Amino acid sequence: MRYELYYWPGIQGRGEFVRLALEAAGARYADVARHDGGEAAMIALMDGRRVVRPPYAPPFLRAGRLVIGQTANILLYLGPRLGLVPAGEAARLWAHQLQLTLADLVAEAHDTHHPIASGLYYEDQRRESKRAAGHFVAERIPKYLGYFERVLAVNPRGPQHLVGARLSYADLSLFQVVEGLTYAFPKAMARLARRHRKVLGVRDRVRDVPRVAAYLASPRRIAFNEDGIFRRYPALDL
Amino acid sequence: MRYELYYWPGIQGRGEFVRLALEAAGARYADVARHDGGEAAMIALMDGRRVVRPPYAPPFLRAGRLVIGQTANILLYLGPRLGLVPAGEAARLWAHQLQLTLADLVAEAHDTHHPIASGLYYEDQRRESKRAAGHFVAERIPKYLGYFERVLAVNPRGPQHLVGARLSYADLSLFQVVEGLTYAFPKAMARLARRHRKVLGVRDRVRDVPRVAAYLASPRRIAFNEDGIFRRYPALDL
Repeated sequence: MRYELYYWPGIQGRGEFVRLALEAAGARYADVARHDGGEAAMIALMDGRRVVRPPYAPPFLRAGRLVIGQTANILLYLGPRLGLVPAGEAARLWAHQLQLTLADLVAEAHDTHHPIASGLYYEDQRRESKRAAGHFVAERIPKYLGYFERVLAVNPRGPQHLVGARLSYADLSLFQVVEGLTYAFPKAMARLARRHRKVLGVRDRVRDVPRVAAYLASPRRIAFNEDGIFRRYPALDL
Repeated sequence: MRYELYYWPGIQGRGEFVRLALEAAGARYADVARHDGGEAAMIALMDGRRVVRPPYAPPFLRAGRLVIGQTANILLYLGPRLGLVPAGEAARLWAHQLQLTLADLVAEAHDTHHPIASGLYYEDQRRESKRAAGHFVAERIPKYLGYFERVLAVNPRGPQHLVGARLSYADLSLFQVVEGLTYAFPKAMARLARRHRKVLGVRDRVRDVPRVAAYLASPRRIAFNEDGIFRRYPALDL
């Protein structure tokens, strides 16, 4: 199967969670909107009146005749096919549950620079952003990272992975979230590192997976930037 | 199977999406935290060091030896078992994708009264709430409802249901979201009704499902209130 990923071309965003899974598995895929005419094709697929199951927003994945939207749903579909989740319903529900919890954290990270409205610029909600980011850094990052630290600590197969004894898409997504938070909030994350060694261990291990390392060093990996979800605004790194 | 639902006892909240599915299917279940000692049992399950797959937050479902967290994940599990999703992977991914999109809308609805931090009171973020709600009502509700209107319009099996030709958990969740938005933003929703007749049609049809109607009339249905996700603050209904 050759997959087609549709996502905004200039940012990592939510598409990056899918890219990491495809890359870590060595899957064949096209990152459609990054090619000539691809962004128009993406928008046509979203808005077209003849699409029977239209996605609400990117990212979405085309796999044969299926068009699948929602990041976590795409990974639910890809996980077993890419060998990135253990067999069995219990493990798959668990990996998906962790992915949805990471998605909640990602949405909250986004809202630190867009607390009033995603349709406004950051510059139009700067004061509110500063207030929101203060709470996010003081309360939410520690709560979420503490949760994942605990998930790793109680994993019967050891603290190397979130699910079972092997790399899963949940590990890849935790890597991406930690990288994003570290980009956006370097001071805060430096303070938090000591208390979340198992989480940072997953980050390090994922970074060293040969296919992931090759991807991160390639031009296919878009750099973090201030159009994405994780933005480095020094005023918000409290 | 007798299910155990764990959720905060005083609000509909995210637990309501699970309650509606269990009720519509006539499933046997206990709403654990609403019984004596149940809330303590819920918190023990969440915080206990011996729980191998701890949920991050309620709601979660106990089904035999499984403990499943994240609302959409619970419905992913329950859907086939309760006859609330068609057979086949494509239909199940689609129902789940719609559920995740509804979950995004629910999170945004919550954030209209908590734009700065969920850990603060509404009273501490009133001014920001008014600004956020203005954008939510003007831009986000129409965008989401327009999307679901279109999903109904392009359903090859007709506009009576979101997925296929029968009631699914996605219909139940759309009902709940429309009811919640109508409770929180009655003026705005009255304006929007005319343009979203298919969405309101689903709301009406779900309300008339005999088991749902019986549930809504029972003491098991908690009334909307200002501790929940959908809150009626007249200052925010613009």
